[in-house]
Amino acid sequence: MKKIEPKILKGTRDFMPLDMAKRNLVMNKIRRIFEKFGYDQIETPIICPAETILGKYGDEGNRLTYNFDDAGGRRIALPFDLTVPFARYYASNWQNLPKPFKRYQIQRVWRAEKPQKGRLREFYQCDIDTIGTSNLIADTETVKVIIEVLKELNFDFKVKVNSRRLINEILAGFGVPEEKFISVITAIDKLEKIGEEGVLKELSEIQNSKKILQTLKPKETNKKTLESLSKYNLSEIKEFLSNCKALGIEDKYIEFDPCLARGLDYYTGMVFEGVSKNSDFGTLCGGGRYDNLCGMFCDEKFSGVGVAFGFERIILLLEKMGEFKNVRLNSKALITIFENKDDSLRIYSQLTASGINCEVYPEPDTIGKQLKFADKKGIPFVIIRGSDEIENNQVTIKFMESGKQKTIPFNQLSTYLTNYYENQGRDTEERAVDAAKPQDPIVTCWRYS
Amino acid sequence: MKKIEPKILKGTRDFMPLDMAKRNLVMNKIRRIFEKFGYDQIETPIICPAETILGKYGDEGNRLTYNFDDAGGRRIALPFDLTVPFARYYASNWQNLPKPFKRYQIQRVWRAEKPQKGRLREFYQCDIDTIGTSNLIADTETVKVIIEVLKELNFDFKVKVNSRRLINEILAGFGVPEEKFISVITAIDKLEKIGEEGVLKELSEIQNSKKILQTLKPKETNKKTLESLSKYNLSEIKEFLSNCKALGIEDKYIEFDPCLARGLDYYTGMVFEGVSKNSDFGTLCGGGRYDNLCGMFCDEKFSGVGVAFGFERIILLLEKMGEFKNVRLNSKALITIFENKDDSLRIYSQLTASGINCEVYPEPDTIGKQLKFADKKGIPFVIIRGSDEIENNQVTIKFMESGKQKTIPFNQLSTYLTNYYENQGRDTEERAVDAAKPQDPIVTCWRYS
Repeated sequence: MKKIEPKILKGTRDFMPLDMAKRNLVMNKIRRIFEKFGYDQIETPIICPAETILGKYGDEGNRLTYNFDDAGGRRIALPFDLTVPFARYYASNWQNLPKPFKRYQIQRVWRAEKPQKGRLREFYQCDIDTIGTSNLIADTETVKVIIEVLKELNFDFKVKVNSRRLINEILAGFGVPEEKFISVITAIDKLEKIGEEGVLKELSEIQNSKKILQTLKPKETNKKTLESLSKYNLSEIKEFLSNCKALGIEDKYIEFDPCLARGLDYYTGMVFEGVSKNSDFGTLCGGGRYDNLCGMFCDEKFSGVGVAFGFERIILLLEKMGEFKNVRLNSKALITIFENKDDSLRIYSQLTASGINCEVYPEPDTIGKQLKFADKKGIPFVIIRGSDEIENNQVTIKFMESGKQKTIPFNQLSTYLTNYYENQGRDTEERAVDAAKPQDPIVTCWRYS
Repeated sequence: MKKIEPKILKGTRDFMPLDMAKRNLVMNKIRRIFEKFGYDQIETPIICPAETILGKYGDEGNRLTYNFDDAGGRRIALPFDLTVPFARYYASNWQNLPKPFKRYQIQRVWRAEKPQKGRLREFYQCDIDTIGTSNLIADTETVKVIIEVLKELNFDFKVKVNSRRLINEILAGFGVPEEKFISVITAIDKLEKIGEEGVLKELSEIQNSKKILQTLKPKETNKKTLESLSKYNLSEIKEFLSNCKALGIEDKYIEFDPCLARGLDYYTGMVFEGVSKNSDFGTLCGGGRYDNLCGMFCDEKFSGVGVAFGFERIILLLEKMGEFKNVRLNSKALITIFENKDDSLRIYSQLTASGINCEVYPEPDTIGKQLKFADKKGIPFVIIRGSDEIENNQVTIKFMESGKQKTIPFNQLSTYLTNYYENQGRDTEERAVDAAKPQDPIVTCWRYS
């Protein structure tokens, strides 16, 4: 029979167990911070009526999104980000939701682009938004969440902040016509990528472009940047910085950068961007204040503020930083099948009942093969019980990292492993057991991750 | 400007924050059990080459799956279950995976069916499989996991078990030709749905159909069922039941039902089904042993065993059972904006740093409006600090459930809330505080969920 090649699409991925352990670790940390700051999770559909995803872009939208006709002739699209589905969700549900409404969303999104290094067709985003308030407290809180997330993930980072209102005021002050604001802002946004000359080249038709860029470029400190712009209205940025202080945000994390624009034209107030100093990967997350998110769907105008975390980029960078070196699979113990199968099953039942993640080897293979299995899975403890141990009410634990093994009373097994588990490998129980048998050297077998 | 209706497709859903809290609660419980038994998570792509999902079904497959051509002319399909993507994954990766391989997978799947009550186009499944061993230990472990999950979720349930080999042997014994096994099994599978007469009608062309059905029908106890079938080979089912005993599975959870067939023709050994007694919703999960899962993709034959949980049905039933009545959103405290905004922000920073899920109200609205907000979100504590409290280093906590409030020293706030949080509302701290002020009645304000 002809076989079908078990392939996947370029730009999509199979996640192996260890990948998932890393991804879940990071996702849970991010989720924990979101929840601590009172954001609640929502989920929106993956198959959507195309117009709710593409809006009025029509054929242009076709290019970047996956969209198709279903069997009933309905045009379907898959979300390309979480902002548009959230806008649709809020437009449809705002009357029943508390106001302001704080949500987080962690889902896959799709881009029908040619996949390249770092550009995927299917990937995760993590977004938070606070909608229904224009108070700067919400902007500051969003930046606080960015900082707490990036701290929790061990990044060396800063958060660049700016005000789109301030950029607009400065551009107007230099006589730039309003209809050119977006193109000028888009050019300035590329400063770090293409350098000063590159930006000036793009601004060749703009008068005073050199002066504008000079004015916008951040100075050595936030204070000096503020001083240099003292003739403009800085009340928004000053209130934001004052809120930061009250919220316990250390100065070192915030860089006021009047060049920061965050491309998208729907931002209307504060904009911000979390930037890693660990590499030139750059931006880890970005967001800002918008005034009319749901405009495509309803007449009501809702002001809000949000940020999207680039989950895949964060994972890549953490991997590079070596942050995953202690990540292991779920099983903390392998119970071997040795002389008495039922005895192994009883141990399995007992250890899982004690809350210990473990597994039983399901074949009567040689102990050598079973140990190889434990080694391949990175399982730290192997439980062995032959007729001698059963007769003496004992059990032997083999520590895979050191290769050592020890025999302890059978009724101490759960406690022994639980203590390891709870102490995250800080071997207190082992030390205690060893203290009773001074001839046996302390075995530091495993750092629990 | 013409607005786009913010609608979603029938058979897909927006999940509100409280929906997600419930779903996450259940998902985390399920996940926790899977992990305790050494299953590791994997994830497979959502957009897939159509042939890897549809196999050789071609146009017939079209009817039930979402599939379409992408811009590059590739035929794409969305998974309709997690079994086929897992078979594809294993065929593609088995050489690098430990053997046996235990994985769990929790993802959405799609069915291009006309949506009806209880039939969705987009929904979640939770699957476990152990592949690469034919030992009955794996089958028993799978049933153990089913039992632990359904116990953890508070179901009143039983797990029906049977052996496809045994059915085949019985049918052969009654002279049913092998090519009719599947159709007979399919008919018998409907016993609970269409009754004995219905089944017999479907079996009208089969000789001895009444005797077959009589033989297959379970007796009052497993022991009696076994006795009634003593002339058949019962070694598989007996070894399974012996394993159950060693794994600590109580007899009451297992019903040996020789009628159970689990329709699908790829099962070859043990089959099982978790059934709720709480309602006629019936099946909560189903699975079994298969011998050639990856046959569509490769020449190697892998034996395995697995079970799929019907997540959406489980959620519906738990809701009916009232299991979600204590589920709340994330915020445990609302910090009001009263006389001093910066003071509120400092409290916010302090409480979140103590690990308390909370939020600050972001507008200088009236206290009445802020309390209404807390009420709408089901936030149990509201923190109020006016100039009096600030002057006296105090803070007032309003308990939303009882409407009472009390003023405590400011530096006790985190501890006070943390104790509530850690004691899951078993108000120890409050009792202690109240004990010091006997005039103040004990306020039982909130059962933390």
